[in-house]
Amino acid sequence: MYKLYYAPGTCALATHIALEEAGAPYEAVLVDFRSQSQRSPEYLALNPKGRVPALVTESGTLTETPALLCFVAQCFPAAELAPLADPFALAKVQEFNSYLCSTVHVAHAHRMRGTRWADDAAAIEAMKRKVSSNVTECFELIEHKLVRGPWVMGDQYTICDPYLFTVASWIEGDGVETSKVPRVMEHRSHMLARPAVQKAVAAEGTQIR
Amino acid sequence: MYKLYYAPGTCALATHIALEEAGAPYEAVLVDFRSQSQRSPEYLALNPKGRVPALVTESGTLTETPALLCFVAQCFPAAELAPLADPFALAKVQEFNSYLCSTVHVAHAHRMRGTRWADDAAAIEAMKRKVSSNVTECFELIEHKLVRGPWVMGDQYTICDPYLFTVASWIEGDGVETSKVPRVMEHRSHMLARPAVQKAVAAEGTQIR
Repeated sequence: MYKLYYAPGTCALATHIALEEAGAPYEAVLVDFRSQSQRSPEYLALNPKGRVPALVTESGTLTETPALLCFVAQCFPAAELAPLADPFALAKVQEFNSYLCSTVHVAHAHRMRGTRWADDAAAIEAMKRKVSSNVTECFELIEHKLVRGPWVMGDQYTICDPYLFTVASWIEGDGVETSKVPRVMEHRSHMLARPAVQKAVAAEGTQIR
Repeated sequence: MYKLYYAPGTCALATHIALEEAGAPYEAVLVDFRSQSQRSPEYLALNPKGRVPALVTESGTLTETPALLCFVAQCFPAAELAPLADPFALAKVQEFNSYLCSTVHVAHAHRMRGTRWADDAAAIEAMKRKVSSNVTECFELIEHKLVRGPWVMGDQYTICDPYLFTVASWIEGDGVETSKVPRVMEHRSHMLARPAVQKAVAAEGTQIR
């Protein structure tokens, strides 16, 4: 039985969906960001980064969404969530997920977490002003160059899909004009039709259309 | 024959070292950042992100360091650069590399690439002021919680090692007091004793001690 530590509205949703898709035995544990539980001594003992997601397994704790997604795919090969035996195809999956974590999520994070990168209030406001154009630029690349359709990697649903869905659920808040990224929006609709996605979204109590 | 597109002083060095460690057939191709070659139509056709590294393979182009490192490990299993068959151990490798790309490299990048996240000159200066403490915090986590020693994952050299070496080669410039991270510095020394590392560093014409 895995334990997934999550908070609503975070990238933990990607792993939550992947666990559902895989039919993995798990329990989702809410980390209450409003009471700063991610900074409690108990949570820091589990995950010294003080962030979500964290997945507690019988071998130890794992963090970082791309690592967690690949772990779920590899532990549950019958779910066929990644082309594990094809190095190039697997690298394309990892390339996409690395881009989401290192560039897209970071571009988004400058809206709410600017204090990570500057102490000055005016600087934090300046970062916020650039989020809309930055995230739009990322999603235009995703729209025109990266998503093959209907799923990210084409006909095969993979661990890229829950991750794109999660990050794409933030774009209205980031000020992206959704009419510019119709394929991304269509992907979001396809995702919402999947029982695993509905279950994870409902469990987290979030609203995604 | 692979083609690795790199620029000196960038994270492309990690893949460069991994290719050497694997004994892979490759050619290293310099992308001249001084003349903005990464923004040329020719390069953007190859890699629309306009960044390095990019690895051209017979199946197509790959980007993003964690993906490239895993690709090299999987294509050259005899080099034993990753615990490919052990999902938890592989996830620990990917967790470490994901942390480097999504948090540590990003913390560093606010020193020279602040224009990615704000247009305002004062804001860019404010970001620079926080780089030293941010990168120090990342490396203290690496020092105390993540590096097992002598290699990142313990006795087994993996694709985490070239990546840590690469990012750690930036820390003096980022204003980290190296005396605070002795295990990281020792790791750097161990790396510099490896022929593959010496060869890649020399080929890029960089100076790392």
